[in-house]
Amino acid sequence: MATSQRPTVGFVGLGAMGFGMAANLVKEGYTVRGYDVFPKSIERFQQAGGIAAASLSNSASGCEYYICMVATALQAQAALFDSEDAIVPGKHPVCHSKGIQFTDPNYPIALPQGATLLLCSTVPSSYAHSFPSQLPSIGRSDIFFVDAPVSCSARRAANGTLSIMAGASDAALAKGKEILAVMSDTNKLYLVPGGIGQGSNMKMVHQVLAGIQILAASEAMGFAARLGLDPAQTYDAVVKSESNSWMFENRGQRMLEEKYSTHVESALTIILKDVGIITAMSRVHAFPTPLVTAAEQVYLQGLSAGFGPNDDSGMVRMYCPDPLNGASDKTSDDSQTAAAKMALVLSLLRYVHIAAAAEAIAYANSLNIDLAQFYELVCAAAGGSAMFSDRGARMIRGIVQSALGIKEAEGEVGTIDEAAGELSAVVQEAQNLKCPLYLGGAALNLFLLAKRRGLGGEPDTTVIGVWGP
Amino acid sequence: MATSQRPTVGFVGLGAMGFGMAANLVKEGYTVRGYDVFPKSIERFQQAGGIAAASLSNSASGCEYYICMVATALQAQAALFDSEDAIVPGKHPVCHSKGIQFTDPNYPIALPQGATLLLCSTVPSSYAHSFPSQLPSIGRSDIFFVDAPVSCSARRAANGTLSIMAGASDAALAKGKEILAVMSDTNKLYLVPGGIGQGSNMKMVHQVLAGIQILAASEAMGFAARLGLDPAQTYDAVVKSESNSWMFENRGQRMLEEKYSTHVESALTIILKDVGIITAMSRVHAFPTPLVTAAEQVYLQGLSAGFGPNDDSGMVRMYCPDPLNGASDKTSDDSQTAAAKMALVLSLLRYVHIAAAAEAIAYANSLNIDLAQFYELVCAAAGGSAMFSDRGARMIRGIVQSALGIKEAEGEVGTIDEAAGELSAVVQEAQNLKCPLYLGGAALNLFLLAKRRGLGGEPDTTVIGVWGP
Repeated sequence: MATSQRPTVGFVGLGAMGFGMAANLVKEGYTVRGYDVFPKSIERFQQAGGIAAASLSNSASGCEYYICMVATALQAQAALFDSEDAIVPGKHPVCHSKGIQFTDPNYPIALPQGATLLLCSTVPSSYAHSFPSQLPSIGRSDIFFVDAPVSCSARRAANGTLSIMAGASDAALAKGKEILAVMSDTNKLYLVPGGIGQGSNMKMVHQVLAGIQILAASEAMGFAARLGLDPAQTYDAVVKSESNSWMFENRGQRMLEEKYSTHVESALTIILKDVGIITAMSRVHAFPTPLVTAAEQVYLQGLSAGFGPNDDSGMVRMYCPDPLNGASDKTSDDSQTAAAKMALVLSLLRYVHIAAAAEAIAYANSLNIDLAQFYELVCAAAGGSAMFSDRGARMIRGIVQSALGIKEAEGEVGTIDEAAGELSAVVQEAQNLKCPLYLGGAALNLFLLAKRRGLGGEPDTTVIGVWGP
Repeated sequence: MATSQRPTVGFVGLGAMGFGMAANLVKEGYTVRGYDVFPKSIERFQQAGGIAAASLSNSASGCEYYICMVATALQAQAALFDSEDAIVPGKHPVCHSKGIQFTDPNYPIALPQGATLLLCSTVPSSYAHSFPSQLPSIGRSDIFFVDAPVSCSARRAANGTLSIMAGASDAALAKGKEILAVMSDTNKLYLVPGGIGQGSNMKMVHQVLAGIQILAASEAMGFAARLGLDPAQTYDAVVKSESNSWMFENRGQRMLEEKYSTHVESALTIILKDVGIITAMSRVHAFPTPLVTAAEQVYLQGLSAGFGPNDDSGMVRMYCPDPLNGASDKTSDDSQTAAAKMALVLSLLRYVHIAAAAEAIAYANSLNIDLAQFYELVCAAAGGSAMFSDRGARMIRGIVQSALGIKEAEGEVGTIDEAAGELSAVVQEAQNLKCPLYLGGAALNLFLLAKRRGLGGEPDTTVIGVWGP
């Protein structure tokens, strides 16, 4: 790769994910001008071969591409438009008063004409939707805008193997595709139909699963510890079962380490922000999200307990305040009892994951998200679970078939009655142990509501009918 | 009242409520033989004029009536039947081996023939249902059994003005009525149709409201404090509004005092027990209880935080860990802003109370509870609220009218759309403040589910339709 041929990229937001993304672009031969509110982050980026921008507007200087990876919509708005020294505005007020054009090479102070702006921060789709009117309102219709939230870990950001959900006009997508391809895994660059806003919506419905399943992992491991099960054995049992999820496998590992404040891969505040976007947008869309709502309140309680800067796997302490290791009941080695207890933990995750799949798919469908693409994306990303892979496919086929007016028999799964019965036994045992089960309780109520609607004998996937008319 | 004419009453469970009830019977001229596992409680009862029984069976000696007021079904079962020295069994093993009859005046060691046993503990109806088979199985078909849980405060127990919900055979009710009348307010003795079990079910559906509204009071006062509102002003505003409830008025007062560990009128563990009965029975009945389920998890979290022995009003600390007094924003005296904030708090309670009324009435209806009696009882008891009085009546009329196949217009109330809209604004503001709103969030989802079912333009009372087929 000849460095000289690569265009210059501006970058704001050099946090855990942003740093990895920006450093990867440097590695791939791009000239990257990086900025962050924390000088230390800029310094680190400079050490990784980046150019330290002196200011927001300076980071945009001469850039064909600009990537915004700050934490929130509020920060994005300030950095891109509302700061005195903002990234996008074409004219620096002082320079303008001197009659100097913003394109004057001596004053490279804002995003050049015809640049492509990629908003990779996770934001409400309503914010992404504001760009097609905000840009013209400041005379910058020349900018190509791509709504392109990303998913996955800091490690994959640094490797250029992110999942990216990009929504934009065809022209903007054509412009942005090159750089999106560099940042993402070949198979994980999703060009989302529906244009601006649908990228953010796609990310959001993915985060419905992530937000529920991060807490579900804590709920399961905490419940297991309260049952007296060994955490490592629980982890192994779940991971090799169909109760597994990407989040359980990932977060469960860190629960075994129990270094929530020193080994922070993803802070509680991050998932809390994403979950907050979901419930805020669900209020705008008047869409009920019982599981995400329940999860959000527990995350807020965790925040109030001081867990905000900790790894989100530390939420297990909301269920089992004592260390997991050492909580297991070494006196009882009755393997039959242990097996029965483990079955409860597996049931909990299984049914929470089915209910989560229903909540996410029902929401995605109501937002006119391409469900086939959503399915493919989730299965390859952090929102995936064995239950989503199986039940999610059935739910989506059900929606498609219902739209087409056909009803095709599927291989058998358990019924709503069985789900309600098994989950009841789990919740009862947790009650006996005085262990809260926020998600287990909320999921059980969804299966019971489905039962009230006459779906008792139907497949457990019909729990999605709770969201129906 | 001539003391000599009054029959002897046995009593087990001399806790806060039980002591008041037993002492009141003494005051009314009954000879009362009291027992408790705590010797200090027996001593105190003796000082109040009661007879200190030496054992469980001794407390039953020569008693025409026996009242069981222990804390749980487990305790009741042990005291009444399963202890070596149990209250009910007709034959003391040792005495029997000597050929001595249990009616021998020298060995007055168990409940006499034809006695009336009143189970006043709050127990699952399934436990009350066990008596008609348990009693014959030990040869005690002679006992008249009344399932008679009570409600209200220790003060009213001591005054003989409790609410009592009594279910039994006609014969047992005829026997028990005298003593039930002494313990209860004239207007608050409810002879519940449907026999044994329905007394406990009636109590249970009343506790659906109590369990939700105790936490709702904390949620509202905590949210108000996080908004910067003055707690005393909040209390006054709620109490004089239609967002008021018996629980808010009662618990809110103690939140102003903030002496949760020293001024304990009703411990968290008590409501947690009642709520546990509700969710356990709701699993047996396959009835969804989203609000009580949410409340239970928060109570369990409170237990885990060490609040168990504290007054349940101390649950406000789950929402606002800092003292309420002093948390108010004295710097902002913009009365318009304060009024807008107060409106959010009032909305929160209003809609949680409407949703709670729906959950309780739907559950009562599914249990074939007499809804008119339930309504009357709630309005006069600790589960009452202004919203229950108004919306509850409308919901019950709706159920009755629907059963009769008629549809009569009612005076107007807000719509589901309005409820969802106003409650969304509340939940959004709480999210901005990072304040959990477990009940507000769960109630909002119920209104949104109703909207999904096409009830958007219908009265807010139609939220009960979420539990429909």
